Amino acid sequence: MQLTGEMFIGADRIRGTAGDRRSVDPATGEELEPAYGMDDGTVVAEACRRAEAAFDAYRSLPDQRRAGFLRQIADNLEAAGEQLVAAVQAETGLAEGRARTELGRTANQLRMFADLLANPDWRDPRHVPAQPDRAPLPRPDLRSRYIPLGPVAVFGASNFPLAFSVAGGDTASALAVGCPVVVKGHLAHLRTGELAGACIADAARTTGMPDGVFSLVFGAGNETGEQLVADPRIAAVGFTGSRAGGTALMAVAQRRPVPIPVFAEMSAINPVFLLPGKVAAAAAETATGYVTSLTMGAGQFCTNPGLLLAVEGPDFATFRETVAGLLGGQVAQTMLTAGIASAYRAGNAELAGLPAVSLVAEGAPTDAPNACRPAVYQTDAKTLLAEPRLQEEVFGATSILVSCATADELIEAATHLGGQLTATLHADPTDHELAAKLLPVLERRAGRIIYNGWPTGVEVSPAMVHGGPYPATSDARATSVGTMAIHRFLRPVAYQDLPEDLLPA
Amino acid sequence: MQLTGEMFIGADRIRGTAGDRRSVDPATGEELEPAYGMDDGTVVAEACRRAEAAFDAYRSLPDQRRAGFLRQIADNLEAAGEQLVAAVQAETGLAEGRARTELGRTANQLRMFADLLANPDWRDPRHVPAQPDRAPLPRPDLRSRYIPLGPVAVFGASNFPLAFSVAGGDTASALAVGCPVVVKGHLAHLRTGELAGACIADAARTTGMPDGVFSLVFGAGNETGEQLVADPRIAAVGFTGSRAGGTALMAVAQRRPVPIPVFAEMSAINPVFLLPGKVAAAAAETATGYVTSLTMGAGQFCTNPGLLLAVEGPDFATFRETVAGLLGGQVAQTMLTAGIASAYRAGNAELAGLPAVSLVAEGAPTDAPNACRPAVYQTDAKTLLAEPRLQEEVFGATSILVSCATADELIEAATHLGGQLTATLHADPTDHELAAKLLPVLERRAGRIIYNGWPTGVEVSPAMVHGGPYPATSDARATSVGTMAIHRFLRPVAYQDLPEDLLPA
Repeated sequence: MQLTGEMFIGADRIRGTAGDRRSVDPATGEELEPAYGMDDGTVVAEACRRAEAAFDAYRSLPDQRRAGFLRQIADNLEAAGEQLVAAVQAETGLAEGRARTELGRTANQLRMFADLLANPDWRDPRHVPAQPDRAPLPRPDLRSRYIPLGPVAVFGASNFPLAFSVAGGDTASALAVGCPVVVKGHLAHLRTGELAGACIADAARTTGMPDGVFSLVFGAGNETGEQLVADPRIAAVGFTGSRAGGTALMAVAQRRPVPIPVFAEMSAINPVFLLPGKVAAAAAETATGYVTSLTMGAGQFCTNPGLLLAVEGPDFATFRETVAGLLGGQVAQTMLTAGIASAYRAGNAELAGLPAVSLVAEGAPTDAPNACRPAVYQTDAKTLLAEPRLQEEVFGATSILVSCATADELIEAATHLGGQLTATLHADPTDHELAAKLLPVLERRAGRIIYNGWPTGVEVSPAMVHGGPYPATSDARATSVGTMAIHRFLRPVAYQDLPEDLLPA
Repeated sequence: MQLTGEMFIGADRIRGTAGDRRSVDPATGEELEPAYGMDDGTVVAEACRRAEAAFDAYRSLPDQRRAGFLRQIADNLEAAGEQLVAAVQAETGLAEGRARTELGRTANQLRMFADLLANPDWRDPRHVPAQPDRAPLPRPDLRSRYIPLGPVAVFGASNFPLAFSVAGGDTASALAVGCPVVVKGHLAHLRTGELAGACIADAARTTGMPDGVFSLVFGAGNETGEQLVADPRIAAVGFTGSRAGGTALMAVAQRRPVPIPVFAEMSAINPVFLLPGKVAAAAAETATGYVTSLTMGAGQFCTNPGLLLAVEGPDFATFRETVAGLLGGQVAQTMLTAGIASAYRAGNAELAGLPAVSLVAEGAPTDAPNACRPAVYQTDAKTLLAEPRLQEEVFGATSILVSCATADELIEAATHLGGQLTATLHADPTDHELAAKLLPVLERRAGRIIYNGWPTGVEVSPAMVHGGPYPATSDARATSVGTMAIHRFLRPVAYQDLPEDLLPA
């Protein structure tokens, strides 16, 4: 399809008039065509108006109509696959294989939510019949079900231009349950966004969805996003991005005359606990897994292992040496944007300058623009507990190895960690007594606990939790991956003594 | 038992040193013994410390141990029934029958949550087994379940000194799922609070619960409550009370370094839609039901019908005349506190002074202190839409009858209402076409929709929703009555490839 640089406002295309922006190829710094017109504030308002106007008709459709819409989006994405993969590569520096995998994941995610709609249990329907003769008071007939909250604002992430963006999990879960969606397009992948938007808009048209069920707006500053969250017709927010961005939107949502829920997936360092038996038995193998997980995709994953803790000793020293050897051979990879690459360098400079923190190793030097040179630092548990900056995510392939004097200090360090998306245990059977002590500590701090694996790679599954206590997300009660993601956009309603002909289908 | 005026801090009793407060009998203005010592800030901190210390042990108990604890609380409340009923009567002005009914409801609510624990499905356990051979990537073994958030702060309501207070639904649902509870006791029913606290503390002791699973603190100003919500060991808040109180706690919770969820049930006017066929067929009968619901318990219910809308005409005039006749015969009832009675008078004076609002009728005059003289006003739909003060709850037996020119204006008025706990339809079969148009409008604005009944009387049931969009509550995704109330205090955790011997029971 032909890229135009226009927004999608319901069934219409509108060009923003508040200046132009172009995507940039981070591997070359080259500006990419076309130019995208930015909104002056009028288009986001119109998108919200249409989303609200579409809501009742859209939520009242039979579930299978919405499922058909989602499946059509998936089909359209796959049909546009070559153009999408090329756009992702040009705009993000991500490799072709990664772009293809992410495309498949995005389509499958839409189909998973479509499948979920085949069973009405997603609404948790309940019925407690009347007991007219109950004393002292008759019991009324009471039914309940979950209904959608209303139009949802979606903010995509730079690091998943397909799976967590215009047609990603937030959009899919909101559309599945009957919420119209207004996406604020990410400026780092405008082409990819327009292509995905076209897949959704086309699917809405061909499956006969109400006008306004989907819009995609572009805006240059923070104003467009803040206007979107503040719009009285928006009922909830799904966000994946930085902690600064997420907390800013949380504040806007709370300042509204009618506050709304925000699910912001923001920031995590995903601690890995390498237990003594495992490091003794498999130091080299574990080091290889760690470096692979750390450096994959230039480390640009929410679940990147940014912290690894172990009890100090010769085995952990061997682990460190192996990591150092592996890291030196790592070739620098292009990061998503110049801003992210610059923040990565600044974050590393800050880490390197902290007292009692030293560099273990870094990847091969490079002169390529916007490249991520992976880096691993080391410190001890006392320093970790004393220095809050060691718990701040440096987005990219940076991680810190933490030496603990004893297993008790390892547990103590775990109790001082902030909220995380994941926590990982590397253990062998001799470690299970210690692992059993760590588990309740980790359960309180993370949305997902991994055993002898790596946190990168988030399975799309009914049992997945991609969430966790603050600051990993704004609301630990939810997940943005897996079928439980729909709960973010639903609320229960009870119907008391409603006659059959007025009951919802 | 002997009342002492002391707080419950885990297994200990501590007397606050920051001045004394006594309950007041609102029917006489008499101060009641004993004097309760208020906290200077140290005791609430100690309560939070012990709640946090108890959390892991408490949440790890077999479900049936926590169920036994809840049942023992219920038994203890019933055993203390006579003293509790007397305390409620003395401190709140509520009638003996009401106090007894509320006691039964409170005990049954605890048993309902105990019963819920008999089936592990309350944790929504999920298991998606591994597929080691899946291409391109193996699928990991993934399990998930809900776990408790952590210690919960509970703020009871003045109008339900048992069912929404120390041993009420917030406490019961939090304790059921494994959250320790710190209650900020309501100053209007200190005796009732101490008695209920003793029932919980005694049950904790006799069923062997960890120390700190329950505390009850008293504080004179807003500081104690704000300190409680700000305490880093508190993970969630349950509140029933005024909109000012609820929004203040929401702001404290959001300002924390780690924001936490607040479920505040705050404010509603619970609109009733009296449709043309029904008012023609049963004006007098409906008027009787309305006045009964409005004046029950001096109108001091969150679900009191504060607004009734109908299409103007001779039938609605008949309805108004019947209401006026019934209201004149209503004897004034004692309100819960002098403050509430004073706010009730001020709210009525403000309503009476609004342009285009007139008094339909009020109850018999009275010289009794703190009495509620019920009052019904009338206005038209245009005035309702233009005057935000007509949508502010006046807590007590006050309601406004709204004349709509047409059925379309009735629907239009409905679309301008704020969030509500309930919306009620009074209709006969000839009204169902109009009712079907109203239903989607009401679904978006209320947590519960009632047909040909009255909103007062909230059934404790798995299908109950006592919640609704802001400002009815701070979070429409939850309910504070019924088994779904546990979702406020739970979050999902996923376990990836965890071996059998490390999996939670």
